Amino acid sequence: MTDTSAPPTNAVPGGSALLARPVAPLSGSRRGAGLTEFRLAEGFWGRLQQTNATTTLGHCLDWMERLGWLANFDRVATGETARERPGWQFSDSEVYKLLEALAWERGRSGSPEAEAMFVALVERIGPAQDEDGYLNTCFGHAGQQPRYSDLEEGHELYCLGHLLQAAVARARVTGPRDPLVEIARRAADHVCREFGAGAREGICGHPEIEVGLAEFGRLLGEPRYLEQARLFIERRGRGTLRPIPLLSAAYFQDDVPVREAQAWRGHAVRALYLAAGALDVAVDTGDDELLDAVRRQWSRTVERRTYLTGGMGSRHQDEGFGEDWELPADRAYCETCAGIASIMVSWRLFLATGEARYADLMERTFYNVLATSPRADGRAFFYANPLQQREAGSDVEASGVNPRAEGGVRAPWFEVSCCPTNVARTLASWQSYAAAVEDDAVTLLQYAAGEGRFALADGAVLALGIITSYPGDGEVRIEIREAPARPVALRLRVPGWATGATLSDAGGPRSVVEPGWAMVEREFQPGEELVLRLPLEPRMTWPHPRVDGLRGTAAIERGPLVLCLESTDLPEGVDLADVRLDAEAPVRAVADGAVAAGRVQVASDPDGTPPFQSQPGGAEPSAGGPAVDLRLIPYHRWAEREPSAMRIFIPVSSSA
Amino acid sequence: MTDTSAPPTNAVPGGSALLARPVAPLSGSRRGAGLTEFRLAEGFWGRLQQTNATTTLGHCLDWMERLGWLANFDRVATGETARERPGWQFSDSEVYKLLEALAWERGRSGSPEAEAMFVALVERIGPAQDEDGYLNTCFGHAGQQPRYSDLEEGHELYCLGHLLQAAVARARVTGPRDPLVEIARRAADHVCREFGAGAREGICGHPEIEVGLAEFGRLLGEPRYLEQARLFIERRGRGTLRPIPLLSAAYFQDDVPVREAQAWRGHAVRALYLAAGALDVAVDTGDDELLDAVRRQWSRTVERRTYLTGGMGSRHQDEGFGEDWELPADRAYCETCAGIASIMVSWRLFLATGEARYADLMERTFYNVLATSPRADGRAFFYANPLQQREAGSDVEASGVNPRAEGGVRAPWFEVSCCPTNVARTLASWQSYAAAVEDDAVTLLQYAAGEGRFALADGAVLALGIITSYPGDGEVRIEIREAPARPVALRLRVPGWATGATLSDAGGPRSVVEPGWAMVEREFQPGEELVLRLPLEPRMTWPHPRVDGLRGTAAIERGPLVLCLESTDLPEGVDLADVRLDAEAPVRAVADGAVAAGRVQVASDPDGTPPFQSQPGGAEPSAGGPAVDLRLIPYHRWAEREPSAMRIFIPVSSSA
Repeated sequence: MTDTSAPPTNAVPGGSALLARPVAPLSGSRRGAGLTEFRLAEGFWGRLQQTNATTTLGHCLDWMERLGWLANFDRVATGETARERPGWQFSDSEVYKLLEALAWERGRSGSPEAEAMFVALVERIGPAQDEDGYLNTCFGHAGQQPRYSDLEEGHELYCLGHLLQAAVARARVTGPRDPLVEIARRAADHVCREFGAGAREGICGHPEIEVGLAEFGRLLGEPRYLEQARLFIERRGRGTLRPIPLLSAAYFQDDVPVREAQAWRGHAVRALYLAAGALDVAVDTGDDELLDAVRRQWSRTVERRTYLTGGMGSRHQDEGFGEDWELPADRAYCETCAGIASIMVSWRLFLATGEARYADLMERTFYNVLATSPRADGRAFFYANPLQQREAGSDVEASGVNPRAEGGVRAPWFEVSCCPTNVARTLASWQSYAAAVEDDAVTLLQYAAGEGRFALADGAVLALGIITSYPGDGEVRIEIREAPARPVALRLRVPGWATGATLSDAGGPRSVVEPGWAMVEREFQPGEELVLRLPLEPRMTWPHPRVDGLRGTAAIERGPLVLCLESTDLPEGVDLADVRLDAEAPVRAVADGAVAAGRVQVASDPDGTPPFQSQPGGAEPSAGGPAVDLRLIPYHRWAEREPSAMRIFIPVSSSA
Repeated sequence: MTDTSAPPTNAVPGGSALLARPVAPLSGSRRGAGLTEFRLAEGFWGRLQQTNATTTLGHCLDWMERLGWLANFDRVATGETARERPGWQFSDSEVYKLLEALAWERGRSGSPEAEAMFVALVERIGPAQDEDGYLNTCFGHAGQQPRYSDLEEGHELYCLGHLLQAAVARARVTGPRDPLVEIARRAADHVCREFGAGAREGICGHPEIEVGLAEFGRLLGEPRYLEQARLFIERRGRGTLRPIPLLSAAYFQDDVPVREAQAWRGHAVRALYLAAGALDVAVDTGDDELLDAVRRQWSRTVERRTYLTGGMGSRHQDEGFGEDWELPADRAYCETCAGIASIMVSWRLFLATGEARYADLMERTFYNVLATSPRADGRAFFYANPLQQREAGSDVEASGVNPRAEGGVRAPWFEVSCCPTNVARTLASWQSYAAAVEDDAVTLLQYAAGEGRFALADGAVLALGIITSYPGDGEVRIEIREAPARPVALRLRVPGWATGATLSDAGGPRSVVEPGWAMVEREFQPGEELVLRLPLEPRMTWPHPRVDGLRGTAAIERGPLVLCLESTDLPEGVDLADVRLDAEAPVRAVADGAVAAGRVQVASDPDGTPPFQSQPGGAEPSAGGPAVDLRLIPYHRWAEREPSAMRIFIPVSSSA
């Protein structure tokens, strides 16, 4: 056991909301912003974070209480377990992800409600832990299957991984002397005993324990935990897991060792959590081969297996990645959790390499997956994020606990309800991914209104006011509020799509800045202002010709936002399936959406027309149809006004 | 119990291979050809039927013995059951489908091997039947779950449905005094007691008992069985089945009553078996509303939810139908069993209505789904029949028991192995679907070399020799070998695609015949000949504009055959993804395939190219690429020479 009286090198003694953040590698000088180092103001992300705090956290707690997922812990504590219990075998993990969200929220805002919820939950969880540190409400107790009797589908280590991540959040905010941290430490020690070298050679069917162990080890300065994470990473891909009927070993990435794989495959969330854990291990052990392997997988997957939204996972079947270029809008899956897991991976890659492309993908995923999931009121969520909805969903589907992925309506809760708490923990710590500090350089990766008081290398502060209504507007004003009396660097990410962006430094002339990094390095004076202007003219985007499912279509984007066309916004009597985009017509922005001049022609009634015809374009809406203005809205707001049919990729009229 | 000494009106006393056929409605004068009424010669279907007889039947028996699916019956008989047993809960049904195939084969060819296999199997099955008629090796015995404790997924009634179909085949060939018929009768009586009016209000999660009961009732003239089938049909769609996690009630068609549904939806095989049962009930009870409901569903589904191959079921997820126009080549599922079930439905609709369009769809499905599944040697099968294979499968995948649907290689057996025995029973009785008799009219629905000796209304015979190498050649010569001395009618189906078909009657001038029926009604003389010439020039076929997944592509068909392009036939170094069809170039037939003049251009290496681009056609193979001849082969023969990448729908070059 580690002596906690001597705080480990990487741990923050006593905790500090100022610097608390989800990912803190042992090496490398680059770090994400701390929870209160960068405070969001009212704005796109500030509002989402506020709704999460005031509504979603309590919403998740209520549902888990109502469904008996919390009482599962009570039953273990009182010895009243039985063969059947409420919830799937992984429902404990939702409680832990909520704990993590509550810990970040407490750190971010000091919320006494979040603190009270957190403490009350930990008081119910603690008594369910077994003497030897094992903690799970589905296995290992009276009437239940034995511990680790189903590594393939049992999710026991997966649940513990989320427990460890919750403990990391708590300790980083309030210090490691905490009941949850003690629970987590006993659980982590148990895992090392059970699965360490010379013990059980197993791995968990669902990766997650790896990131949990690595970060918990970082927190406590405990190398055994990192080593255990390393063992799990190295064991994977060697066919250790027993086959599950109808699934291949690729489903849980047990087909190819991590360092040999070329692309992500199988169940998307599993593949991405595994990659995040592999990166933690690679960085902390200096294993460049492993780091390069994950970078290679990222490149191939982002080039060929990722949607325009940043969504990953083409297939409903197995919630999995498709093959290269298998990106049909028809039934894109794009699970919310896979988007979050992709953010976890890209963030680690940014910290390890400093490359802007990782933050570019994060922005795309933040605005078009993470922000798409929660309804504006924070009480309903998308699990899947398809790029096309052929038929409007039904309000009935949104009224209770839903199957996980269907219907085109956000649901309050799911049978498999991984997404709501994943959204909650990510929103509560969002600012930690938006800025980074490296020695005397502050990097703004994502643009959100707020105030940053960044702690530089020697304890000096660079305080910035960020005034912007981005992504509604492309202007980002950065006001210097406090700066040391020496040259420091301010780096701004210019997104890959932002050709023609300009930067005005302290009222000077504008200069064009290329996508990548724009850096200003000098001595700053309080009161000075820099203005970054990102071009938000709507733009058409075309799929690669190898994407069979999108041939002959184009999408419209505006800044980081992918736009979509909802049936709600079509003139009476026009079917979304009949809309054709005129690629020559101007596309112009209005309000928070965009208007594209498109051509709409109601096709002859499709009833009775054969699906396959001897002439091309049989029932193609004729090119001479009337041109009408189409109003596209940001994809992340679709299906909010009413259930709708929706498209991101719109067929381009044949005259184009 | 029915007194079998007085043969029921619809039963053939003593059985008769001459007239034995799978479907024999109580009403209507139209009937399918009997097993030996129409004998296939060497030819497309004759060869498939012969390989099935000599190889596939034994192959299926061997696998089921090897995997312990047969021993399951022994264990019930000897009281050695336990909680675990080999095979899925529905493995009994494969034994029954093999029995059905053996019964047809015995009837068709008189094969003593088939007879011996059949008798030996029945001897093992009989002792497993419980006193009260219940028969299942997975439920209801020591260590097993109780009978009917899992109607949603237990498949008990589904298995019994296949048992009844096997008994129908046996009785129609050798008469109703048979051990299997007795087993089936006791099982059917048990089902009526357990699930009749006033008893358990349940239905089976997987339809099939309905067709089994209806046909067994027809065989024995037992109205209770038809009534029980009617009850099952009427109960469905009212939410009787408990929800299965992550599945909707549409999965097993318990969402909407059969007579109210607009289209088929959910699990494709279930939807189609249910429709077949509903048709049996509708026809035998004179329920025109129910008949019309299924006709409506057929039309909507064939227009909007059916692939060019006749394949049904777009989704791997839930093996289900998609929504209207959801027909992506990416991951089309098109389960072999769904194709067979579609044939079952269309055949019943033809018998009920006499409309040619049902036989048209059957032809499409026969050649492009049924014939695609078995490898030429009859020892490996496709479960799924996708329209596109992005990457060549692996021979390794084909070496043993495979998951059900992946890989692009035919497999000897599957974990869920419904398809091989379904193929076997359908091939063994194929000729019964190829011709029909109605009073003094003989109808040829499918063209295959062979000899028909059709029994007309009064016992007179119209004997025809059919000489053709169709579909390799479009000429079908029909030689009159025996005919009554009075006018009789010969009706020939002119397929929907066969514009320009001609018919020469007894050496007279050719006349053009329109798609639909060509009828010659007169007194025939032995030695006369009619020649039907079907145009087999390859033709391009275009998808409906609403089929998003196929936009900008076309397919090539030749007669009833859908063609495909395999990577195997591409010049060295050309990637299938880079091939573009020149829609203006001539397409000409060669040998048993077709050659299309296509344009091929190797695109710049796709590595590093973004999947979404600011210009259309970024990496589109340039229009100026070299024109090379593409050799397309019939789809049903793909992946036979080696694992390959494959496409049916090929992007059309943008200059077209």
